Amino acid sequence: MAKKKGKAETAESMAQKQREISVSEFFLKNRHLLGFDNPRKALLTTVKEAVDNALDACEEAGIVPEVSVDIQQVGNNRFVVSIADNGPGVVRAQIPRIFAKLLYGSKFHRLRMSRGQQGIGISAAGMYGQLTTGCATRILSKTKGKKNAHLIDVQIDTKKNKPTILKDEELEWCPEFYPTKSDGKQSKTVKSVSGTCVSIEMEASYVRGRLSVDEYLKQCAVVNPHLQLHYRVALAKAKAGNGQQAIGNGAEKKGEKGAEEGAANEIPWITFFRVNKELPEAPGEIKPHPHGVELGLLMQMLKDSTARTIRSALAQDFSRVSSATALKICETAGVSPKARPASIAHRESESLFKAISETKLMRPPTDCLSPIGEDQIIAGLKKEITADFFTAVTRPPTVYRGNPFQIEVGIAYAKPGENEDLGAEDPVRVMRCANRVPLLHMGGACAISKAISGVNWKTYGLSQPRGSQPVGPMVVMVHMASVWVPFTSESKEAIAHYPEIIKEISFCLQECGRRLSVYLKKKKRLMEVERKRDYMAMYIPHMALGLKEILDLSDKQEKTVIKSLNKMLEKTHLEA
Amino acid sequence: MAKKKGKAETAESMAQKQREISVSEFFLKNRHLLGFDNPRKALLTTVKEAVDNALDACEEAGIVPEVSVDIQQVGNNRFVVSIADNGPGVVRAQIPRIFAKLLYGSKFHRLRMSRGQQGIGISAAGMYGQLTTGCATRILSKTKGKKNAHLIDVQIDTKKNKPTILKDEELEWCPEFYPTKSDGKQSKTVKSVSGTCVSIEMEASYVRGRLSVDEYLKQCAVVNPHLQLHYRVALAKAKAGNGQQAIGNGAEKKGEKGAEEGAANEIPWITFFRVNKELPEAPGEIKPHPHGVELGLLMQMLKDSTARTIRSALAQDFSRVSSATALKICETAGVSPKARPASIAHRESESLFKAISETKLMRPPTDCLSPIGEDQIIAGLKKEITADFFTAVTRPPTVYRGNPFQIEVGIAYAKPGENEDLGAEDPVRVMRCANRVPLLHMGGACAISKAISGVNWKTYGLSQPRGSQPVGPMVVMVHMASVWVPFTSESKEAIAHYPEIIKEISFCLQECGRRLSVYLKKKKRLMEVERKRDYMAMYIPHMALGLKEILDLSDKQEKTVIKSLNKMLEKTHLEA
Repeated sequence: MAKKKGKAETAESMAQKQREISVSEFFLKNRHLLGFDNPRKALLTTVKEAVDNALDACEEAGIVPEVSVDIQQVGNNRFVVSIADNGPGVVRAQIPRIFAKLLYGSKFHRLRMSRGQQGIGISAAGMYGQLTTGCATRILSKTKGKKNAHLIDVQIDTKKNKPTILKDEELEWCPEFYPTKSDGKQSKTVKSVSGTCVSIEMEASYVRGRLSVDEYLKQCAVVNPHLQLHYRVALAKAKAGNGQQAIGNGAEKKGEKGAEEGAANEIPWITFFRVNKELPEAPGEIKPHPHGVELGLLMQMLKDSTARTIRSALAQDFSRVSSATALKICETAGVSPKARPASIAHRESESLFKAISETKLMRPPTDCLSPIGEDQIIAGLKKEITADFFTAVTRPPTVYRGNPFQIEVGIAYAKPGENEDLGAEDPVRVMRCANRVPLLHMGGACAISKAISGVNWKTYGLSQPRGSQPVGPMVVMVHMASVWVPFTSESKEAIAHYPEIIKEISFCLQECGRRLSVYLKKKKRLMEVERKRDYMAMYIPHMALGLKEILDLSDKQEKTVIKSLNKMLEKTHLEA
Repeated sequence: MAKKKGKAETAESMAQKQREISVSEFFLKNRHLLGFDNPRKALLTTVKEAVDNALDACEEAGIVPEVSVDIQQVGNNRFVVSIADNGPGVVRAQIPRIFAKLLYGSKFHRLRMSRGQQGIGISAAGMYGQLTTGCATRILSKTKGKKNAHLIDVQIDTKKNKPTILKDEELEWCPEFYPTKSDGKQSKTVKSVSGTCVSIEMEASYVRGRLSVDEYLKQCAVVNPHLQLHYRVALAKAKAGNGQQAIGNGAEKKGEKGAEEGAANEIPWITFFRVNKELPEAPGEIKPHPHGVELGLLMQMLKDSTARTIRSALAQDFSRVSSATALKICETAGVSPKARPASIAHRESESLFKAISETKLMRPPTDCLSPIGEDQIIAGLKKEITADFFTAVTRPPTVYRGNPFQIEVGIAYAKPGENEDLGAEDPVRVMRCANRVPLLHMGGACAISKAISGVNWKTYGLSQPRGSQPVGPMVVMVHMASVWVPFTSESKEAIAHYPEIIKEISFCLQECGRRLSVYLKKKKRLMEVERKRDYMAMYIPHMALGLKEILDLSDKQEKTVIKSLNKMLEKTHLEA
């Protein structure tokens, strides 16, 4: 091929090449930013985004969530991933945009604690499926009060970042994807009045281990004790033959319930049962705190305000600003409190900004957070992890950059040999979570990992290589709840290193560490006593023999002496 | 404040809250993803994005680049950053969108090696300035042939991701921001026929060190030996008093050349002089290689093709597919080569995809890359780094995921004490570059760092703690040139861990390492000879004295003996 080097451009020729880039095109080319680096991670990310959405929807609608995750291999490196929930469903008009348009959603523009916050995840999963298999995303959804469900096949027009609808039907609602356990048997199916099921066919790869869907769902069950989760993976039996066949009509199969179920029915569901039916308290939405707002944003907010005066705009659009405080701010700034907010000139907003930063304000309200809670954390850990000692600490809420947040830590410590997964010589296992979502990848870049290795665990009786994670048969679960979790990337895998956040996590870890050290000390003391007891028990027969000789006792008396000495030893042991 | 908890939502109430999120809003809230985490990094990112754009524009227009970077403190934590170039300029109509619209540009939709590739950077810098100070981005630009320059003040309407023009004037062009050295004096100013100057007022912080603008520009000069770069930083003298004043009218000041120059004129420019006036060979644009294209993308490309038949679409839209190969692919797939590309059904494109993956194709053309070159790397290193030994290796191009790329490594090794910056006991200094852009942050996450610590440097005579960077008074420069560099984030700070890339870097490092080891061995041998010589030299007088006594020589004869022995020693030493 001939060498095709570029020739010199002019401003005019370059201007003709300037084009708008749609956000879908951008993320399609940069899909590793969204967690679709490779087939294995793509599978996890898809499950994660769909389960997050399901849980958010259920909780917002006040429904105790029951979710099923169904992974079916339909070819070599090819899977259909279906996630169903008993949530409120999605109204017909919103389905295409929610599932096939990036940057669309209800969670971005509010300050409220939720799992999703970007409006990217599930559409990105669909886009990845489309890229790798050409197949559409299939959504089945029914809302309460409607007779039928909607079945919609939708793809993204990546050039325009808009949905293209390929199929749009009404169907009878058969929420048969919820096999539930009733007295130990998997028999009944729940009749839910509403729900959503999303299916995506994609290139993927299923591998077990620390970064697997299995691990994600297990952790999900720990931090969401109110969630009932059903899960199954149906791998293709014969790689050759069947594989290629399946590729050809994989997309069609999804529709034909019968055909699909035929293969999958043999695979039983694994169920992570819920601990209780209590929904976490619904978190409230808050307004931005003035001290967390930059000058440019302040100007924008004043411009957009519906209030008629500066004074009322300040009191109405921000948290912790009363009408009296607003007046004081205006006076400090030398701005008329009755001025129209939109008319504030550049210089005046600078004075206003300065006046705000000089005014003492209450910290933002922190009751907008819904932590898991100490009892629930312990219940969740006990449910999924075999261990001897459990403890949990929920810190009071605090604030970074005007955003309220709250840290919780749970610890499960196993006796040696009690839990095969937890080796006494291995680094402790860390479960990182943000707004009840487990984070698996990019642990090294996360504020949680940094806080854990920053704590001096030797003080609490664990060994710890310098600057590393501590070592021991232990699980450490750290949860950050916030109205805005500062992730290091769109794929939401690690929390950014804000000093305020790392400090809070450290405090919380230390409190748990102290409790652990009490447990470990007691255990050590008990072992010490045990050792002494065993030692003395060994000598009791000899002492009895000695006494027998000195006092000239009978064999029967000797046995009585042994018995009472043993009893005495037992008693002191119990008192220790 | 009363507790404001959310109440249960329904599908309908949730639907009403769904909204589109503009890409500007998204990145404004997530600005750490673009490199605007904190004031210090924001300054670096701004300079980086503007310099990248300037260099790309100059090279595309065939102009030897001369760039000035002017950083002026105008208040407490407040700076005006101005970057000017002698490039082709930007036509009036494109200025607002290029500088105030995210995801807009000429580089995203092509496969061509360039510094920019996303269409985000400079608009993001302007958006950050706007957020933190409320000020507009100011652009002064003149294209060739026009009499006057355009002066435009522009802001982003973040809700719509569209530019808002605040000022639009014509001005006489005075490219006075290029003081150049002529016979050692900074006197003349270059009269460039065209150019662009962008000024952004922003909250920032200027700190020296490894992650500073200074370091970035220095590395930039190393990897762009054809670049002439002028740089100055004018810090505010009195923090109090002046600071607040400046905040008030900072935005205005930018316009009043006189006022601004008054303060800055005292600060001299630092100039990084160019080594030569040769522009790097302009890289060509290539088409996608079929083996790097996923099924979904293939379908999209066929749908969008302007060709009239499948066969011609394959030959025309992809690299390395001749008309004959296209026919063969169609036959293998069982698809009519005369079918209209847009009419290809789902199943047929799958067969086509399979046929393509089974067809042997030449690797993509690699002459589209423009490496720095071994001589230029050495020239660049010698220019900025004091060292004793220099070497460089440019590997032949290769391919990852259908994208051609090429690795280059340069090494500069200093004698002990020769360069204060390079400690013999410190880890070697690494300069990471991608498409001639130095990467400073996130070294830990970069494929280059991984490759460096993966090489066994002990073989080449350096010490190296297990699994870490080697230790020694050395600079290692690694450059990756590609039509598409896979960065780990939008802020383009680290290269993703593709095995093909890491392998190539390792090979290149090893080649340099072998050369280094030859140098180090020779140096060691010389030192050894030196040591022996010194040792022998010490004994010469004693030998002479011995000879004198045995042979009964005169004092004069003794001196002659010493002289000739020394001469002999000198001779053998030189021969060694």
